[in-house]
Amino acid sequence: MPELDLIRRIRRLSGSRWIGDDCAVLPQRPGEELLVTADLLVENVHFRRRTHSAGDCGWRLMARGLSDIAAMGGTPRYAFVSLALAKWAGEQWLDAFYRGLLKLARRHRVQLAGGDLTRASITAAGIVVLGAVPGGTALRRSGARPGDIVYVSGALGRAAASKWRDLPEPRLSLGRYLRAKASACMDLSDGLALDLHRLCLESRCSAAIDEVPVYPGATPAQALTGGDDYELLFTAPPATRIPCSLRGLALTRLGVITAGSPGRILFAGRPLAPAGWDSFRRINPPARGMTELK
Amino acid sequence: MPELDLIRRIRRLSGSRWIGDDCAVLPQRPGEELLVTADLLVENVHFRRRTHSAGDCGWRLMARGLSDIAAMGGTPRYAFVSLALAKWAGEQWLDAFYRGLLKLARRHRVQLAGGDLTRASITAAGIVVLGAVPGGTALRRSGARPGDIVYVSGALGRAAASKWRDLPEPRLSLGRYLRAKASACMDLSDGLALDLHRLCLESRCSAAIDEVPVYPGATPAQALTGGDDYELLFTAPPATRIPCSLRGLALTRLGVITAGSPGRILFAGRPLAPAGWDSFRRINPPARGMTELK
Repeated sequence: MPELDLIRRIRRLSGSRWIGDDCAVLPQRPGEELLVTADLLVENVHFRRRTHSAGDCGWRLMARGLSDIAAMGGTPRYAFVSLALAKWAGEQWLDAFYRGLLKLARRHRVQLAGGDLTRASITAAGIVVLGAVPGGTALRRSGARPGDIVYVSGALGRAAASKWRDLPEPRLSLGRYLRAKASACMDLSDGLALDLHRLCLESRCSAAIDEVPVYPGATPAQALTGGDDYELLFTAPPATRIPCSLRGLALTRLGVITAGSPGRILFAGRPLAPAGWDSFRRINPPARGMTELK
Repeated sequence: MPELDLIRRIRRLSGSRWIGDDCAVLPQRPGEELLVTADLLVENVHFRRRTHSAGDCGWRLMARGLSDIAAMGGTPRYAFVSLALAKWAGEQWLDAFYRGLLKLARRHRVQLAGGDLTRASITAAGIVVLGAVPGGTALRRSGARPGDIVYVSGALGRAAASKWRDLPEPRLSLGRYLRAKASACMDLSDGLALDLHRLCLESRCSAAIDEVPVYPGATPAQALTGGDDYELLFTAPPATRIPCSLRGLALTRLGVITAGSPGRILFAGRPLAPAGWDSFRRINPPARGMTELK
């Protein structure tokens, strides 16, 4: 099928007004800052053809993008999806991929506004999500200060325990709620141990944690290093009241930010290595969950 | 090398302030509309490891993105670059890729504002460029009307004649110049025959052309269907004065927009098939220029 027909197909599925020009033309709103995030989903790294359906791949890609907007306290508006399609990914795969992606997008009123398409020897997808926050209110990784309390939403290790088959929910309402409360925030895409290390590096501080909410059926190791949970990790000054839960989503106090060496994490008093998901640590890493599946 | 070190390396090369949070936070300017474009550059489709240097790959990717902003009459501001790196693409390749990309970006005052990195079995890159136009002035593909004159910048077939080794220059000043003059505009990424067909489809009209400026050393077929020239194809009402050249760049009158069947093109009185670069027309297409090189 020629590219023009594929684009027509995506237009029809998405109802997108913008696909057709060289660029999307988007309005700007006064008083807002723009949020932009980019994410990849690559065959044999983030998913495998045999174990992940096209619809789940589409949902996951959109969830990764939306979760970054949630982590900044923003409202997502537009998504740009680029696809390199292997020969095995035909029109049915393409349709199911976009249906999965659009299901999550519509739930959060995000419009598909463009992208690019090409053939390739593997299937790979990239997403860029544009969102917005009121000027000056974006949550950053760099705002944690010694004495701040460290929190996490939900329970960790869920993705690893489901063998990376669950569909994550981006925590968009929590992110917006935290805008006036959190001193720093990020989403947990690569595991608590690695991501808390990153937050502390950006904030030039250390952290000491004592507790981690483990998802039922997950091991403590999966909760610490499994990754792909897309919960929000955040800090707030001790005087800021953070409830135990928000609309049914648990918010757990993990520990405290300290003034030590930047990026150093203590868990129950012992150093915690910044281990987690990193496709560059191993050559040709197996797709997530594959080691468990086989 | 772990991902954190690779990100540090890219931060150092680019001097980017934004890489580090989950999203880039960008200012909006009153009275402007936002332009957004997405493009892919995939190994064995758009380039090959043996014939295209890392620096040229970086330049080409940036040129593809900037050319779309030029086609809309915009000013580019920010770029987001995502990279899936095969094992063969080590730190030296990465450095050279970003140097090539940043050289062109700096010439047009475009800032690298984010992206994503992963390992993969092939090397593939995606770019999203954000730009802006004064509200309501963006050039579209859909504005051509019967009677409008069809123009093209530069000479065509240059990329094919150089065996896809030349480095394209995005026509950003021409695009801005055309904002108040052109009725429709797009960039020539896939060849005149296919791209003029697309412009006429979007404008629901036909075109009759009599002349094509052929690059010295290129064949007429390369000029019509070679693609990758990144010149601007545009239309303007007959009363609008378009000079023969602008700052040394030739602007050639190709023919006229007519009221026929949408997308139908006549060249010297005979139907011209919408042939050109389309990675979906062939299964596992060779990289551009490879058929000529071997």
